[in-house]
Amino acid sequence: MMTDNYISSAQNHKIKKLLLLQQKSSERRQEGLFVVEGKREMMHCIEGGYQFDSVFCCPDYIDDEALEILRGFDGGVKRFDVSKEVYERIAYRGSTEGMIAEVRMRASSLEGLELGVHPLIVVLERVEKPGNLGAVLRSADAAGADAVIVCDPLTDLYNPNLIRSSIGAVFTVPCVACTSEECITFLKSHDINILTAQLQDSSLYYATDMTAPTAIVMGTESTGLTSQWRDAADAHIRIPMLGRLDSLNVSVSAAILLFEAVRQRQGM
Amino acid sequence: MMTDNYISSAQNHKIKKLLLLQQKSSERRQEGLFVVEGKREMMHCIEGGYQFDSVFCCPDYIDDEALEILRGFDGGVKRFDVSKEVYERIAYRGSTEGMIAEVRMRASSLEGLELGVHPLIVVLERVEKPGNLGAVLRSADAAGADAVIVCDPLTDLYNPNLIRSSIGAVFTVPCVACTSEECITFLKSHDINILTAQLQDSSLYYATDMTAPTAIVMGTESTGLTSQWRDAADAHIRIPMLGRLDSLNVSVSAAILLFEAVRQRQGM
Repeated sequence: MMTDNYISSAQNHKIKKLLLLQQKSSERRQEGLFVVEGKREMMHCIEGGYQFDSVFCCPDYIDDEALEILRGFDGGVKRFDVSKEVYERIAYRGSTEGMIAEVRMRASSLEGLELGVHPLIVVLERVEKPGNLGAVLRSADAAGADAVIVCDPLTDLYNPNLIRSSIGAVFTVPCVACTSEECITFLKSHDINILTAQLQDSSLYYATDMTAPTAIVMGTESTGLTSQWRDAADAHIRIPMLGRLDSLNVSVSAAILLFEAVRQRQGM
Repeated sequence: MMTDNYISSAQNHKIKKLLLLQQKSSERRQEGLFVVEGKREMMHCIEGGYQFDSVFCCPDYIDDEALEILRGFDGGVKRFDVSKEVYERIAYRGSTEGMIAEVRMRASSLEGLELGVHPLIVVLERVEKPGNLGAVLRSADAAGADAVIVCDPLTDLYNPNLIRSSIGAVFTVPCVACTSEECITFLKSHDINILTAQLQDSSLYYATDMTAPTAIVMGTESTGLTSQWRDAADAHIRIPMLGRLDSLNVSVSAAILLFEAVRQRQGM
Protein backbone atom coordinates (compact mmCIF):
# COMPACT_ATOMS: atom_id res chain seq x y z
CA MET A 1 0.00 0.00 0.00
CA MET A 2 1.33 3.37 -1.07
CA THR A 3 1.43 6.11 1.58
CA ASP A 4 1.03 9.62 0.25
CA ASN A 5 1.37 12.98 1.90
CA TYR A 6 -0.39 14.13 5.02
CA ILE A 7 -3.47 16.29 4.41
CA SER A 8 -4.17 18.97 6.99
CA SER A 9 -6.42 21.30 5.00
CA ALA A 10 -10.06 20.74 4.12
CA GLN A 11 -9.35 22.85 1.02
CA ASN A 12 -7.14 20.07 -0.39
CA HIS A 13 -8.60 19.03 -3.76
CA LYS A 14 -8.73 15.35 -2.74
CA ILE A 15 -10.87 16.26 0.28
CA LYS A 16 -13.13 18.43 -1.85
CA LYS A 17 -13.60 15.55 -4.29
CA LEU A 18 -14.38 13.12 -1.43
CA LEU A 19 -17.05 15.47 -0.08
CA LEU A 20 -18.61 15.77 -3.55
CA LEU A 21 -18.68 11.97 -3.89
CA GLN A 22 -20.52 11.77 -0.55
CA GLN A 23 -23.02 14.45 -1.47
CA LYS A 24 -23.82 14.03 -5.15
CA SER A 25 -24.97 10.97 -7.03
CA SER A 26 -24.06 12.73 -10.30
CA GLU A 27 -20.45 13.01 -9.09
CA ARG A 28 -20.44 9.34 -8.11
CA ARG A 29 -21.72 8.35 -11.55
CA GLN A 30 -19.24 10.56 -13.35
CA GLU A 31 -16.23 9.33 -11.39
CA GLY A 32 -17.40 5.72 -11.08
CA LEU A 33 -16.53 5.93 -7.38
CA PHE A 34 -18.44 5.87 -4.10
CA VAL A 35 -17.51 6.42 -0.44
CA VAL A 36 -17.45 3.85 2.36
CA GLU A 37 -16.97 4.75 6.01
CA GLY A 38 -16.57 2.52 9.03
CA LYS A 39 -14.76 -0.72 9.75
CA ARG A 40 -17.71 -3.10 9.47
CA GLU A 41 -18.86 -1.56 6.21
CA MET A 42 -15.33 -1.64 4.77
CA MET A 43 -14.88 -5.29 5.74
CA HIS A 44 -18.13 -6.27 4.02
CA CYS A 45 -17.07 -4.23 0.99
CA ILE A 46 -13.73 -6.05 0.83
CA GLU A 47 -15.47 -9.44 1.25
CA GLY A 48 -17.82 -8.43 -1.57
CA GLY A 49 -14.78 -8.16 -3.86
CA TYR A 50 -14.98 -4.43 -4.51
CA GLN A 51 -11.89 -2.61 -5.75
CA PHE A 52 -10.68 0.15 -3.42
CA ASP A 53 -9.18 3.27 -4.95
CA SER A 54 -8.07 5.35 -1.93
CA VAL A 55 -8.28 5.31 1.85
CA PHE A 56 -8.24 8.39 4.08
CA CYS A 57 -7.04 7.60 7.61
CA CYS A 58 -6.90 9.68 10.72
CA PRO A 59 -3.97 8.33 12.80
CA ASP A 60 -5.58 9.78 15.95
CA TYR A 61 -8.55 7.47 15.66
CA ILE A 62 -7.54 4.19 14.03
CA ASP A 63 -7.28 1.10 16.25
CA ASP A 64 -5.79 -2.39 15.78
CA GLU A 65 -8.80 -3.62 13.87
CA ALA A 66 -8.50 -0.70 11.45
CA LEU A 67 -4.74 -1.30 11.05
CA GLU A 68 -5.50 -4.91 10.18
CA ILE A 69 -7.81 -3.77 7.40
CA LEU A 70 -5.19 -1.31 6.09
CA ARG A 71 -2.53 -4.03 6.04
CA GLY A 72 -4.79 -6.14 3.84
CA PHE A 73 -4.77 -3.59 1.00
CA ASP A 74 -2.36 -4.11 -1.87
CA GLY A 75 -0.09 -1.53 -3.48
CA GLY A 76 -2.79 -0.25 -5.80
CA VAL A 77 -4.73 1.42 -3.00
CA LYS A 78 -3.62 4.99 -2.30
CA ARG A 79 -3.45 5.95 1.37
CA PHE A 80 -3.77 9.50 2.66
CA ASP A 81 -3.35 10.41 6.30
CA VAL A 82 -5.49 13.33 7.39
CA SER A 83 -5.57 15.62 10.42
CA LYS A 84 -8.26 15.40 13.09
CA GLU A 85 -9.83 18.60 11.78
CA VAL A 86 -10.02 17.31 8.22
CA TYR A 87 -11.35 13.94 9.39
CA GLU A 88 -14.16 15.56 11.32
CA ARG A 89 -15.17 17.42 8.16
CA ILE A 90 -15.38 14.23 6.06
CA ALA A 91 -16.71 11.77 8.66
CA TYR A 92 -20.43 11.16 8.88
CA ARG A 93 -20.51 9.73 12.36
CA GLY A 94 -18.08 11.44 14.65
CA SER A 95 -14.58 10.17 14.88
CA THR A 96 -14.88 6.65 16.22
CA GLU A 97 -13.77 4.77 13.14
CA GLY A 98 -10.91 6.71 11.59
CA MET A 99 -11.14 5.41 8.02
CA ILE A 100 -13.01 6.50 4.90
CA ALA A 101 -12.47 4.93 1.47
CA GLU A 102 -13.21 5.70 -2.15
CA VAL A 103 -14.29 2.49 -3.87
CA ARG A 104 -14.90 1.70 -7.52
CA MET A 105 -18.52 1.07 -8.61
CA ARG A 106 -19.35 -2.23 -10.23
CA ALA A 107 -21.80 -2.78 -13.04
CA SER A 108 -24.70 -5.02 -12.05
CA SER A 109 -27.51 -6.36 -14.20
CA LEU A 110 -30.43 -8.75 -13.96
CA GLU A 111 -28.64 -11.13 -16.32
CA GLY A 112 -25.62 -11.15 -14.03
CA LEU A 113 -27.59 -12.34 -10.97
CA GLU A 114 -26.61 -15.79 -9.75
CA LEU A 115 -29.79 -17.34 -8.41
CA GLY A 116 -30.21 -20.50 -6.36
CA VAL A 117 -32.58 -23.34 -7.25
CA HIS A 118 -35.47 -21.73 -5.34
CA PRO A 119 -34.66 -18.05 -5.50
CA LEU A 120 -35.96 -15.67 -2.85
CA ILE A 121 -35.89 -12.10 -4.11
CA VAL A 122 -37.03 -8.76 -2.73
CA VAL A 123 -38.26 -6.15 -5.21
CA LEU A 124 -38.78 -2.54 -4.14
CA GLU A 125 -40.64 -0.20 -6.45
CA ARG A 126 -39.79 3.51 -6.49
CA VAL A 127 -37.97 3.43 -3.17
CA GLU A 128 -37.07 6.97 -2.18
CA LYS A 129 -35.37 7.01 1.20
CA PRO A 130 -31.82 5.62 1.16
CA GLY A 131 -32.18 4.68 4.83
CA ASN A 132 -35.20 2.49 4.08
CA LEU A 133 -33.44 0.70 1.22
CA GLY A 134 -30.41 0.13 3.43
CA ALA A 135 -32.56 -1.35 6.19
CA VAL A 136 -34.30 -3.65 3.67
CA LEU A 137 -30.88 -4.86 2.47
CA ARG A 138 -29.99 -5.68 6.09
CA SER A 139 -33.19 -7.74 6.43
CA ALA A 140 -32.52 -9.42 3.07
CA ASP A 141 -29.01 -10.38 4.15
CA ALA A 142 -30.30 -11.91 7.39
CA ALA A 143 -32.90 -13.99 5.55
CA GLY A 144 -30.35 -15.18 3.00
CA ALA A 145 -32.23 -13.64 0.07
CA ASP A 146 -30.68 -14.15 -3.37
CA ALA A 147 -31.05 -10.55 -4.47
CA VAL A 148 -32.69 -7.19 -3.95
CA ILE A 149 -33.98 -5.53 -7.11
CA VAL A 150 -34.89 -1.85 -7.00
CA CYS A 151 -37.24 -0.72 -9.75
CA ASP A 152 -37.38 2.88 -10.93
CA PRO A 153 -35.56 3.95 -7.74
CA LEU A 154 -35.44 7.56 -6.62
CA THR A 155 -32.10 7.01 -4.87
CA ASP A 156 -28.85 5.48 -6.09
CA LEU A 157 -27.31 2.34 -4.60
CA TYR A 158 -24.19 4.16 -3.45
CA ASN A 159 -25.78 6.81 -1.27
CA PRO A 160 -23.82 7.10 2.02
CA ASN A 161 -27.02 6.89 4.12
CA LEU A 162 -27.94 3.68 2.33
CA ILE A 163 -24.53 2.12 2.95
CA ARG A 164 -24.64 3.12 6.60
CA SER A 165 -28.16 1.91 7.32
CA SER A 166 -27.42 -1.38 5.55
CA ILE A 167 -24.35 -1.84 7.82
CA GLY A 168 -22.62 -3.08 4.68
CA ALA A 169 -25.37 -5.45 3.48
CA VAL A 170 -25.38 -3.49 0.21
CA PHE A 171 -22.06 -5.25 -0.46
CA THR A 172 -23.15 -8.75 0.65
CA VAL A 173 -26.56 -8.99 -1.06
CA PRO A 174 -26.61 -8.84 -4.88
CA CYS A 175 -28.43 -5.65 -5.75
CA VAL A 176 -29.66 -4.50 -9.17
CA ALA A 177 -31.48 -1.34 -10.29
CA CYS A 178 -33.73 -1.51 -13.36
CA THR A 179 -37.15 -0.53 -14.64
CA SER A 180 -40.29 -2.29 -13.41
CA GLU A 181 -40.89 -3.57 -16.94
CA GLU A 182 -37.43 -5.16 -17.16
CA CYS A 183 -37.90 -6.72 -13.73
CA ILE A 184 -41.33 -8.21 -14.50
CA THR A 185 -40.01 -9.68 -17.77
CA PHE A 186 -37.02 -11.14 -15.92
CA LEU A 187 -39.11 -12.71 -13.14
CA LYS A 188 -41.68 -14.18 -15.53
CA SER A 189 -39.01 -15.61 -17.84
CA HIS A 190 -37.39 -17.31 -14.83
CA ASP A 191 -40.71 -18.69 -13.50
CA ILE A 192 -40.37 -16.75 -10.27
CA ASN A 193 -43.70 -16.17 -8.49
CA ILE A 194 -44.51 -12.51 -8.02
CA LEU A 195 -46.10 -11.83 -4.60
CA THR A 196 -47.11 -8.21 -4.20
CA ALA A 197 -47.57 -6.75 -0.72
CA GLN A 198 -50.81 -4.77 -0.73
CA LEU A 199 -53.73 -4.30 1.63
CA GLN A 200 -56.58 -4.64 -0.88
CA ASP A 201 -57.62 -7.90 -2.57
CA SER A 202 -54.96 -9.83 -0.73
CA SER A 203 -54.46 -13.00 1.31
CA LEU A 204 -52.69 -13.27 4.62
CA TYR A 205 -49.00 -13.76 3.89
CA TYR A 206 -48.71 -16.89 6.01
CA ALA A 207 -51.52 -18.53 4.04
CA THR A 208 -49.49 -18.10 0.83
CA ASP A 209 -46.98 -20.62 -0.46
CA MET A 210 -43.44 -19.24 -0.61
CA THR A 211 -41.54 -22.49 -1.15
CA ALA A 212 -41.47 -22.07 -4.94
CA PRO A 213 -39.16 -19.46 -6.51
CA THR A 214 -40.51 -16.23 -5.03
CA ALA A 215 -40.17 -12.48 -5.47
CA ILE A 216 -41.69 -10.36 -2.70
CA VAL A 217 -42.60 -6.98 -4.17
CA MET A 218 -43.18 -3.88 -2.06
CA GLY A 219 -44.04 -0.27 -2.84
CA THR A 220 -43.51 2.86 -0.81
CA GLU A 221 -45.13 3.37 2.60
CA SER A 222 -47.11 6.33 1.30
CA THR A 223 -48.34 5.27 -2.12
CA GLY A 224 -47.95 1.49 -2.29
CA LEU A 225 -47.40 -0.37 -5.57
CA THR A 226 -48.39 0.78 -9.05
CA SER A 227 -51.02 -1.15 -11.00
CA GLN A 228 -48.26 -2.44 -13.30
CA TRP A 229 -47.03 -4.62 -10.44
CA ARG A 230 -50.43 -5.47 -8.98
CA ASP A 231 -51.51 -6.70 -12.43
CA ALA A 232 -48.33 -8.74 -12.93
CA ALA A 233 -48.71 -10.52 -9.58
CA ASP A 234 -49.26 -14.25 -9.11
CA ALA A 235 -50.66 -13.49 -5.65
CA HIS A 236 -51.38 -10.45 -3.49
CA ILE A 237 -50.32 -10.79 0.13
CA ARG A 238 -50.76 -8.67 3.25
CA ILE A 239 -49.48 -8.53 6.79
CA PRO A 240 -52.48 -8.18 9.12
CA MET A 241 -52.41 -4.89 10.98
CA LEU A 242 -53.83 -5.75 14.39
CA GLY A 243 -53.31 -2.44 16.21
CA ARG A 244 -54.26 1.18 15.74
CA LEU A 245 -51.56 2.23 13.30
CA ASP A 246 -51.96 1.53 9.62
CA SER A 247 -48.47 0.70 8.39
CA LEU A 248 -45.16 -0.90 9.19
CA ASN A 249 -41.71 0.31 8.20
CA VAL A 250 -40.78 -1.26 4.84
CA SER A 251 -37.70 -3.03 6.26
CA VAL A 252 -39.85 -4.54 9.02
CA SER A 253 -42.45 -5.71 6.48
CA ALA A 254 -39.70 -7.16 4.28
CA ALA A 255 -38.24 -9.08 7.23
CA ILE A 256 -41.62 -10.53 8.27
CA LEU A 257 -42.32 -11.74 4.72
CA LEU A 258 -38.80 -13.02 4.04
CA PHE A 259 -38.60 -14.98 7.28
CA GLU A 260 -41.97 -16.56 6.55
CA ALA A 261 -40.39 -17.86 3.33
CA VAL A 262 -37.42 -19.08 5.41
CA ARG A 263 -39.77 -20.85 7.82
CA GLN A 264 -41.79 -22.51 5.05
CA ARG A 265 -38.63 -23.61 3.26
CA GLN A 266 -37.38 -25.28 6.47
CA GLY A 267 -40.53 -27.39 6.30
CA MET A 268 -41.82 -25.97 9.60
CA MET B 1 -60.74 25.87 24.04
CA MET B 2 -59.14 29.00 25.47
CA THR B 3 -57.04 31.11 23.10
CA ASP B 4 -54.20 33.00 24.72
CA ASN B 5 -51.89 35.62 23.38
CA TYR B 6 -49.77 35.38 20.30
CA ILE B 7 -46.12 34.47 20.97
CA SER B 8 -43.57 35.96 18.62
CA SER B 9 -40.40 35.67 20.71
CA ALA B 10 -38.42 32.52 21.39
CA GLN B 11 -37.44 34.16 24.67
CA ASN B 12 -41.04 33.83 25.94
CA HIS B 13 -40.98 31.76 29.13
CA LYS B 14 -43.58 29.31 27.78
CA ILE B 15 -41.37 28.60 24.76
CA LYS B 16 -38.33 28.16 27.00
CA LYS B 17 -40.25 25.68 29.14
CA LEU B 18 -41.41 23.76 26.05
CA LEU B 19 -37.82 23.45 24.79
CA LEU B 20 -36.70 22.19 28.21
CA LEU B 21 -39.49 19.57 28.20
CA GLN B 22 -38.30 18.38 24.79
CA GLN B 23 -34.67 18.22 25.83
CA LYS B 24 -34.58 17.02 29.44
CA SER B 25 -36.16 13.95 30.99
CA SER B 26 -35.60 15.52 34.44
CA GLU B 27 -37.74 18.49 33.39
CA ARG B 28 -40.45 16.13 32.10
CA ARG B 29 -40.46 14.22 35.39
CA GLN B 30 -40.53 17.38 37.49
CA GLU B 31 -43.39 18.97 35.53
CA GLY B 32 -45.28 15.73 34.86
CA LEU B 33 -45.57 16.83 31.22
CA PHE B 34 -44.19 15.68 27.87
CA VAL B 35 -44.27 17.06 24.34
CA VAL B 36 -46.11 15.65 21.31
CA GLU B 37 -45.61 16.93 17.78
CA GLY B 38 -47.41 16.01 14.58
CA LYS B 39 -51.01 15.25 13.65
CA ARG B 40 -50.83 11.47 13.59
CA GLU B 41 -49.04 11.35 16.93
CA MET B 42 -51.52 13.79 18.51
CA MET B 43 -54.49 11.79 17.25
CA HIS B 44 -53.12 8.58 18.73
CA CYS B 45 -52.42 10.44 21.98
CA ILE B 46 -56.01 11.71 22.11
CA GLU B 47 -57.35 8.21 21.33
CA GLY B 48 -55.15 6.88 24.12
CA GLY B 49 -57.06 9.10 26.55
CA TYR B 50 -54.18 11.37 27.52
CA GLN B 51 -54.94 14.77 29.04
CA PHE B 52 -53.62 17.72 27.02
CA ASP B 53 -52.35 20.76 28.88
CA SER B 54 -51.43 23.23 26.09
CA VAL B 55 -51.18 23.38 22.32
CA PHE B 56 -48.82 25.65 20.38
CA CYS B 57 -50.09 26.34 16.85
CA CYS B 58 -48.51 28.09 13.93
CA PRO B 59 -51.38 29.55 11.86
CA ASP B 60 -49.11 29.61 8.78
CA TYR B 61 -48.85 25.84 8.75
CA ILE B 62 -52.03 24.27 10.10
CA ASP B 63 -54.42 22.61 7.66
CA ASP B 64 -58.02 21.37 7.87
CA GLU B 65 -56.99 18.12 9.55
CA ALA B 66 -55.12 20.09 12.21
CA LEU B 67 -58.09 22.43 12.72
CA GLU B 68 -60.31 19.40 13.23
CA ILE B 69 -58.02 18.20 16.02
CA LEU B 70 -58.00 21.65 17.64
CA ARG B 71 -61.81 21.83 17.57
CA GLY B 72 -61.93 18.55 19.49
CA PHE B 73 -60.18 20.00 22.55
CA ASP B 74 -62.27 21.19 25.47
CA GLY B 75 -61.93 24.44 27.39
CA GLY B 76 -59.27 23.09 29.71
CA VAL B 77 -56.63 23.02 26.97
CA LYS B 78 -54.67 26.27 26.63
CA ARG B 79 -53.94 27.36 23.07
CA PHE B 80 -51.04 29.60 22.08
CA ASP B 81 -50.50 30.82 18.56
CA VAL B 82 -46.84 31.28 17.66
CA SER B 83 -44.99 33.01 14.83
CA LYS B 84 -43.26 31.09 12.04
CA GLU B 85 -39.88 31.94 13.56
CA VAL B 86 -40.86 30.62 17.00
CA TYR B 87 -42.42 27.51 15.48
CA GLU B 88 -39.26 26.68 13.58
CA ARG B 89 -37.32 26.87 16.85
CA ILE B 90 -39.62 24.42 18.64
CA ALA B 91 -40.48 22.01 15.80
CA TYR B 92 -38.43 18.85 15.38
CA ARG B 93 -39.32 18.17 11.79
CA GLY B 94 -39.56 21.30 9.75
CA SER B 95 -42.82 23.08 9.56
CA THR B 96 -45.18 20.67 7.88
CA GLU B 97 -47.47 19.95 10.82
CA GLY B 98 -48.01 23.23 12.64
CA MET B 99 -48.96 21.87 16.08
CA ILE B 100 -47.02 20.93 19.20
CA ALA B 101 -48.67 19.99 22.50
CA GLU B 102 -47.74 19.62 26.13
CA VAL B 103 -49.47 16.55 27.52
CA ARG B 104 -49.81 15.24 31.06
CA MET B 105 -47.89 12.05 31.94
CA ARG B 106 -49.84 9.11 33.23
CA ALA B 107 -48.72 6.65 35.87
CA SER B 108 -48.42 3.11 34.57
CA SER B 109 -47.64 -0.06 36.47
CA LEU B 110 -47.46 -3.80 35.91
CA GLU B 111 -50.51 -4.25 38.12
CA GLY B 112 -52.47 -1.82 35.96
CA LEU B 113 -51.92 -3.80 32.73
CA GLU B 114 -55.08 -5.25 31.24
CA LEU B 115 -54.06 -8.51 29.64
CA GLY B 116 -56.05 -10.74 27.29
CA VAL B 117 -56.61 -14.45 27.83
CA HIS B 118 -53.43 -15.37 25.96
CA PRO B 119 -51.24 -12.34 26.48
CA LEU B 120 -48.48 -11.51 24.02
CA ILE B 121 -45.92 -9.20 25.58
CA VAL B 122 -42.61 -7.71 24.46
CA VAL B 123 -39.95 -7.13 27.10
CA LEU B 124 -36.88 -5.02 26.35
CA GLU B 125 -33.98 -5.07 28.79
CA ARG B 126 -31.80 -1.99 29.20
CA VAL B 127 -32.93 -0.37 25.96
CA GLU B 128 -30.85 2.72 25.32
CA LYS B 129 -31.84 4.31 22.02
CA PRO B 130 -35.25 6.04 22.07
CA GLY B 131 -35.55 5.46 18.30
CA ASN B 132 -35.19 1.70 18.75
CA LEU B 133 -37.80 1.57 21.51
CA GLY B 134 -40.18 3.65 19.38
CA ALA B 135 -39.73 1.31 16.41
CA VAL B 136 -40.38 -1.72 18.63
CA LEU B 137 -43.60 -0.09 19.85
CA ARG B 138 -44.67 0.35 16.23
CA SER B 139 -44.06 -3.38 15.57
CA ALA B 140 -45.89 -4.29 18.79
CA ASP B 141 -48.91 -2.21 17.77
CA ALA B 142 -49.05 -3.90 14.36
CA ALA B 143 -48.94 -7.37 15.90
CA GLY B 144 -51.63 -6.48 18.45
CA ALA B 145 -49.34 -7.12 21.42
CA ASP B 146 -50.91 -6.62 24.86
CA ALA B 147 -48.01 -4.61 26.26
CA VAL B 148 -44.40 -3.56 25.98
CA ILE B 149 -42.43 -3.70 29.23
CA VAL B 150 -39.08 -1.92 29.41
CA CYS B 151 -36.78 -3.17 32.16
CA ASP B 152 -34.05 -1.00 33.65
CA PRO B 153 -34.35 1.35 30.65
CA LEU B 154 -31.69 3.94 29.85
CA THR B 155 -34.26 6.22 28.21
CA ASP B 156 -37.62 7.51 29.41
CA LEU B 157 -40.91 6.70 27.71
CA TYR B 158 -41.62 10.34 26.84
CA ASN B 159 -38.48 11.11 24.84
CA PRO B 160 -39.44 13.04 21.67
CA ASN B 161 -37.38 10.71 19.43
CA LEU B 162 -39.22 7.73 20.88
CA ILE B 163 -42.64 9.29 20.27
CA ARG B 164 -41.66 10.21 16.71
CA SER B 165 -40.17 6.84 15.75
CA SER B 166 -43.19 5.05 17.25
CA ILE B 167 -45.49 7.25 15.09
CA GLY B 168 -47.70 7.42 18.18
CA ALA B 169 -47.68 3.69 19.03
CA VAL B 170 -46.34 4.68 22.46
CA PHE B 171 -49.90 5.94 23.10
CA THR B 172 -51.71 2.91 21.64
CA VAL B 173 -49.71 0.07 23.19
CA PRO B 174 -49.72 -0.20 27.00
CA CYS B 175 -46.16 0.48 28.08
CA VAL B 176 -44.61 0.02 31.53
CA ALA B 177 -41.11 0.66 32.86
CA CYS B 178 -39.86 -1.40 35.82
CA THR B 179 -36.89 -3.42 37.03
CA SER B 180 -36.06 -6.81 35.53
CA GLU B 181 -36.75 -8.41 38.91
CA GLU B 182 -40.24 -6.92 39.13
CA CYS B 183 -40.96 -7.98 35.56
CA ILE B 184 -39.82 -11.59 36.05
CA THR B 185 -41.92 -11.87 39.23
CA PHE B 186 -44.93 -10.46 37.37
CA LEU B 187 -44.58 -12.80 34.38
CA LYS B 188 -44.08 -15.89 36.54
CA SER B 189 -47.01 -15.07 38.81
CA HIS B 190 -49.23 -14.72 35.72
CA ASP B 191 -47.99 -17.99 34.15
CA ILE B 192 -46.64 -16.17 31.12
CA ASN B 193 -43.92 -18.09 29.27
CA ILE B 194 -40.63 -16.24 29.08
CA LEU B 195 -38.93 -16.67 25.69
CA THR B 196 -35.53 -14.98 25.57
CA ALA B 197 -34.01 -14.05 22.22
CA GLN B 198 -30.38 -15.15 22.28
CA LEU B 199 -27.98 -16.81 19.86
CA GLN B 200 -26.45 -19.36 22.22
CA ASP B 201 -28.24 -22.46 23.56
CA SER B 202 -31.38 -21.60 21.65
CA SER B 203 -33.99 -23.14 19.37
CA LEU B 204 -35.25 -21.71 16.11
CA TYR B 205 -38.09 -19.35 16.95
CA TYR B 206 -40.54 -21.01 14.57
CA ALA B 207 -39.97 -24.36 16.26
CA THR B 208 -41.12 -22.85 19.57
CA ASP B 209 -44.73 -22.77 20.74
CA MET B 210 -46.07 -19.24 21.16
CA THR B 211 -49.77 -20.02 21.47
CA ALA B 212 -49.67 -20.03 25.28
CA PRO B 213 -49.32 -16.72 27.18
CA THR B 214 -45.94 -15.46 25.95
CA ALA B 215 -43.40 -12.77 26.72
CA ILE B 216 -40.70 -12.24 24.10
CA VAL B 217 -37.64 -10.81 25.83
CA MET B 218 -34.85 -9.01 23.98
CA GLY B 219 -31.63 -7.33 25.07
CA THR B 220 -29.56 -4.68 23.35
CA GLU B 221 -27.96 -5.24 19.94
CA SER B 222 -24.49 -4.85 21.42
CA THR B 223 -24.57 -6.79 24.68
CA GLY B 224 -27.68 -9.00 24.52
CA LEU B 225 -29.56 -10.14 27.63
CA THR B 226 -28.19 -10.41 31.15
CA SER B 227 -27.97 -13.82 32.83
CA GLN B 228 -30.86 -12.84 35.10
CA TRP B 229 -33.17 -13.12 32.09
CA ARG B 230 -31.48 -16.08 30.45
CA ASP B 231 -31.83 -18.00 33.73
CA ALA B 232 -35.48 -17.01 34.15
CA ALA B 233 -36.42 -18.19 30.64
CA ASP B 234 -38.80 -21.02 29.82
CA ALA B 235 -37.17 -21.25 26.39
CA HIS B 236 -34.33 -19.59 24.49
CA ILE B 237 -35.14 -18.69 20.90
CA ARG B 238 -33.18 -17.35 17.95
CA ILE B 239 -33.76 -15.98 14.50
CA PRO B 240 -31.42 -17.78 12.09
CA MET B 241 -28.91 -15.37 10.54
CA LEU B 242 -28.49 -16.69 7.00
CA GLY B 243 -26.31 -13.94 5.51
CA ARG B 244 -22.98 -12.32 6.28
CA LEU B 245 -24.12 -9.81 8.91
CA ASP B 246 -24.51 -10.91 12.49
CA SER B 247 -27.50 -8.98 13.77
CA LEU B 248 -30.88 -7.47 12.95
CA ASN B 249 -32.31 -4.23 14.20
CA VAL B 250 -34.23 -4.87 17.43
CA SER B 251 -37.55 -3.63 15.99
CA VAL B 252 -37.13 -5.98 13.02
CA SER B 253 -36.38 -8.91 15.33
CA ALA B 254 -39.36 -8.02 17.50
CA ALA B 255 -41.64 -7.94 14.45
CA ILE B 256 -40.44 -11.33 13.15
CA LEU B 257 -41.00 -12.96 16.56
CA LEU B 258 -44.34 -11.25 17.26
CA PHE B 259 -45.80 -12.11 13.86
CA GLU B 260 -44.76 -15.74 14.31
CA ALA B 261 -46.92 -15.71 17.45
CA VAL B 262 -49.73 -14.12 15.41
CA ARG B 263 -49.38 -16.83 12.76
CA GLN B 264 -49.38 -19.68 15.28
CA ARG B 265 -52.37 -18.20 17.09
CA GLN B 266 -54.31 -18.09 13.81
CA GLY B 267 -53.81 -21.85 13.67
CA MET B 268 -51.76 -21.57 10.48
